[in-house]
Amino acid sequence: MSSGLNMSRRIRRTPYTDRVEARGVRGFSVVNHMLLPKAFGPTIEEDYWHLSEHVQIWDVSCQRQVELRGRDAARLAQWMTPRNLGRAKVGQCLYVPLVDEMGGLVNDPILLKLADDHFWLSIADSDVLLWAKGLALGARLDVSVNEPDVSPLAIQGPKAQALMEAVFGAAVGKLKFFQFGRFSFRDTHQIIARSGYSNQDGFEIYLHDGKLGGALWDTLWEAGQTFNIAPGCPNLIDRVEAGLLSYGNEMTRDNNPLECGLQKYCQLDGSIEFIGRDALTRINEDGVERQIRGVFFDGEPCPACGKPWPVSPLGHEDVHIGQVTTAAYSPRFKRNIGLTMIERSYWNKGQPVTITSSDGERRTGEVTSLPFTPNA
Amino acid sequence: MSSGLNMSRRIRRTPYTDRVEARGVRGFSVVNHMLLPKAFGPTIEEDYWHLSEHVQIWDVSCQRQVELRGRDAARLAQWMTPRNLGRAKVGQCLYVPLVDEMGGLVNDPILLKLADDHFWLSIADSDVLLWAKGLALGARLDVSVNEPDVSPLAIQGPKAQALMEAVFGAAVGKLKFFQFGRFSFRDTHQIIARSGYSNQDGFEIYLHDGKLGGALWDTLWEAGQTFNIAPGCPNLIDRVEAGLLSYGNEMTRDNNPLECGLQKYCQLDGSIEFIGRDALTRINEDGVERQIRGVFFDGEPCPACGKPWPVSPLGHEDVHIGQVTTAAYSPRFKRNIGLTMIERSYWNKGQPVTITSSDGERRTGEVTSLPFTPNA
Repeated sequence: MSSGLNMSRRIRRTPYTDRVEARGVRGFSVVNHMLLPKAFGPTIEEDYWHLSEHVQIWDVSCQRQVELRGRDAARLAQWMTPRNLGRAKVGQCLYVPLVDEMGGLVNDPILLKLADDHFWLSIADSDVLLWAKGLALGARLDVSVNEPDVSPLAIQGPKAQALMEAVFGAAVGKLKFFQFGRFSFRDTHQIIARSGYSNQDGFEIYLHDGKLGGALWDTLWEAGQTFNIAPGCPNLIDRVEAGLLSYGNEMTRDNNPLECGLQKYCQLDGSIEFIGRDALTRINEDGVERQIRGVFFDGEPCPACGKPWPVSPLGHEDVHIGQVTTAAYSPRFKRNIGLTMIERSYWNKGQPVTITSSDGERRTGEVTSLPFTPNA
Repeated sequence: MSSGLNMSRRIRRTPYTDRVEARGVRGFSVVNHMLLPKAFGPTIEEDYWHLSEHVQIWDVSCQRQVELRGRDAARLAQWMTPRNLGRAKVGQCLYVPLVDEMGGLVNDPILLKLADDHFWLSIADSDVLLWAKGLALGARLDVSVNEPDVSPLAIQGPKAQALMEAVFGAAVGKLKFFQFGRFSFRDTHQIIARSGYSNQDGFEIYLHDGKLGGALWDTLWEAGQTFNIAPGCPNLIDRVEAGLLSYGNEMTRDNNPLECGLQKYCQLDGSIEFIGRDALTRINEDGVERQIRGVFFDGEPCPACGKPWPVSPLGHEDVHIGQVTTAAYSPRFKRNIGLTMIERSYWNKGQPVTITSSDGERRTGEVTSLPFTPNA
């Protein structure tokens, strides 16, 4: 094991870990007590170019499913998010920020509506299972809350549709973004969504029954040879370019969804009831003091942002106005780009800033809107 | 960074991470979304001998505190555990298994009773904060549930008392095992307990206010020079010899406390109310089908147990009777030792077994009771 990380059962292997190791994974991270491959190619820039031109297979089993099922499932789901689920349709994926009673973000999963009384929350890195179980138990709701044996495998990149059609038939290519359907694989019906944590087209196969993991990987791998398939994982450059947020990085329980630019997922007109509604309504009325923005900045290609980098107004480096939480050198924009939580007086597009990266270098840049656009 | 792991803010650094890196940490694991040092010395056996002869300083900040405070704090604490907290005293530490409505283990923290309406749960690797918050919110309890800015630092080894007395005064040495008190450090009062995740004497300093982390480490480090102090971390060999269980390894939500040998922490006579009481009572009446035991086994010093190793009755290697979840070569017993969850018909002391370790080797051994004893 290149990372030396997987030394115990506590950090769970996935149905694909054997395959990922056989393909030369260069290390793992840990999400939801489970291994997430960290890198394959020699550099993340090479992985980035491959992802934007061909197709990749990603072990994202760590996107665990929290299943809500039963008479009160819809009630619990709505209680957990400020997003109005009233018009959600079966077969739809919805991005749903989850907040606590203070309006702080608990997680930001994708909700899959499987039936009127059956939902999956495909989660980021926190134990939503315990949160949902605690709420249900405390409020005596009639709902079962479980982690099913479901291990998502992502197919991402511009050739994803061609590969998926080759394996699952033409119908899978008809899926629209954030729609899912059921497709055959070895006498089973598996849920497949058009979705993924990248800036590219892509699909996620919610494999039910880990014992099929090796067969699913091998089938896609073989069919993918025609399309120049490579093993991959969420790519830092691609993610930052797309302005995709990461729970635990850009946002934590100390942040509310309004700070994170997630206003459109917050129905604050009093028409729905959810945890944290009073707090979020008050925050919305007062206006937030800081918000997530993009930032372009100069200098050599920046290192990874292992701990937040302080942001100051240009020329006033003793004043702290925000922090960069994720950054990368963008080959497309030919500049460094980052995601930053920044104070209200300084969040306008074009605001000149100084960023002190962890290598100690002071870098000049300017605030921009998200997602990044070339003429920013 | 030797592990290459700390590439994002999502995996949190601690107030001591800078010091730990300066002392040459060889890698990190992740517990509660936070870095836990994995190794310092050239081998874990050298770390083990040092720990059993001198004193070590461990960054165990990942033992996060879940604070319960308010009118219903005691009620919530009791609701969360089958252990009777009725006679718990202020100043006492208690090992408390937490279970869900099925009797499955959610975590196994140490509870510190700070006042009649004020508790800390010093947790293993799962988001007890979300569990407790969900329960409190669902049941409309009058209690605040938070993660305070507390980062435990452990001093472990036979010279721990001498070092702690040198820094905090003679009174700290009067603490009995699993007692805590408040001691001065730089104009603050810090909670110190006689406890720790080792087979040795030791203390844990529940540092409140991460800004003091560097100063606390440096003070102990300098005073520790007389006692041959070294940086360390929970030691695999020491832990297995002591039969100390690890949540996520020996036990998960799929296990109940009765299977894990935690009967004495389960009051099942109906005198207290807690989540999972009916389930645990039923399981207790039926008798458990499997239970944790120790196992001695032969062969070369075994590799780390990255995924569970199958256990069979000796001579019947096609029969699966259990799994080894943690194992190490014990220099004290001069044999390999492991922790195993094993079926009822085979759990008696002396049962001959075959263990297939991850290197593919079949090893002969026998079941024993815990903790390991020399004449087993």
